[in-house]
Amino acid sequence: MTTEPYTPPPAIPPYIADVPGLLRWETTSREDAVVHAQQLTKESFTYDEVYGRFCTVEEYIDAPPRAVFDYLSDIRNLNEYTYSTRDFRPVEGRPGLHVGRDTLVDDRTPIYMQFHTDPAALTVDMHCAWDQGDELWMIYLYRIIDAQLVLGRPGSVVLWTNCRHPYYDKNPHPELATSPDRPWVGDFWNLFYAGHWVELQNLKKILEFHHGGGTPRESGTA
Amino acid sequence: MTTEPYTPPPAIPPYIADVPGLLRWETTSREDAVVHAQQLTKESFTYDEVYGRFCTVEEYIDAPPRAVFDYLSDIRNLNEYTYSTRDFRPVEGRPGLHVGRDTLVDDRTPIYMQFHTDPAALTVDMHCAWDQGDELWMIYLYRIIDAQLVLGRPGSVVLWTNCRHPYYDKNPHPELATSPDRPWVGDFWNLFYAGHWVELQNLKKILEFHHGGGTPRESGTA
Repeated sequence: MTTEPYTPPPAIPPYIADVPGLLRWETTSREDAVVHAQQLTKESFTYDEVYGRFCTVEEYIDAPPRAVFDYLSDIRNLNEYTYSTRDFRPVEGRPGLHVGRDTLVDDRTPIYMQFHTDPAALTVDMHCAWDQGDELWMIYLYRIIDAQLVLGRPGSVVLWTNCRHPYYDKNPHPELATSPDRPWVGDFWNLFYAGHWVELQNLKKILEFHHGGGTPRESGTA
Repeated sequence: MTTEPYTPPPAIPPYIADVPGLLRWETTSREDAVVHAQQLTKESFTYDEVYGRFCTVEEYIDAPPRAVFDYLSDIRNLNEYTYSTRDFRPVEGRPGLHVGRDTLVDDRTPIYMQFHTDPAALTVDMHCAWDQGDELWMIYLYRIIDAQLVLGRPGSVVLWTNCRHPYYDKNPHPELATSPDRPWVGDFWNLFYAGHWVELQNLKKILEFHHGGGTPRESGTA
């Protein structure tokens, strides 16, 4: 392969000359950079260091990316792979908005939910909240990747991230709680990694049972 | 809000009745599930437990999502926020393919790179490889989220994931190495968290310096 005529850029682009604190090859030697990286690479990380601000879980699933997308995009399937969210139904007069229940706390706490999906990007974003459907601030961000590209084998990689919205730490509408002593969803943040990992394993087991080997079978969800 | 007439689904959908090993509310009590989650929630996690198969770093950046997308989508900007990848230029006769160098090892190792961007989904995927441009198996997956939605404040959240392709552990083309004793890119997997965290901080500093406060300024990159 040959390349087109080319003038290299200056070593320090003017655009970033004024930005303090950058770590770049031109100003930090390879040896110093490796030492710096080794200092950041600890033997072990605390829960808060890894999952304090963002909670990401990742998994390989032996099912075609499109099948994973279709399954995640159907709100009825929350009944199957989540531990405790159940029975979502449309809210009249609010297109796209659904309401179900979260059995993690009680049967009277409504959870409002709206899906935003992008079939070209294979993203499925689940916007939800307890108690009210006007501000859906709990957002489950899913992205599906073709595993052939990133792992060299058929199937899918599922990336799932939650970001720690301030409402996790402080319920913005305590007056809507079913009782004053009901736990708040943010009380469970320190269990999000475990809970989401378990649900991602549920998802993997269900999809691999029905689509294992990368070959789509007739779906029973329709 | 009222809801439409609704018939709840059966507690155990027939679709999943045959799938072994699921953890669901109907078959595992709330108390048992919490104990299980607590057992999974360790005081600390080893590097391999967190970053062994996938390496995700996340960060808030005080710059508009579209500005972050535009910046990440311009291959020339790798010169600025990466530690060591430099001087990408188009490869003649290969639309979209670029070649640059990675100063982490030596100045003779070419790194081939092709960007796949989706402005609607705000994803930027950087497909690349050392030594050859025919199979771009190292894939840097970026997704930008509007921080107003997920953190309740202006700006962006950047998610960045790499998946551990088998080639990281075994160079598929050792004959293309610039020398037999040159390190292989996969030798650095145990430093990926640190390296990517540093580069994400570079990205944050550059974008916040020029776009801080969520207000776009004139860009100097054009």
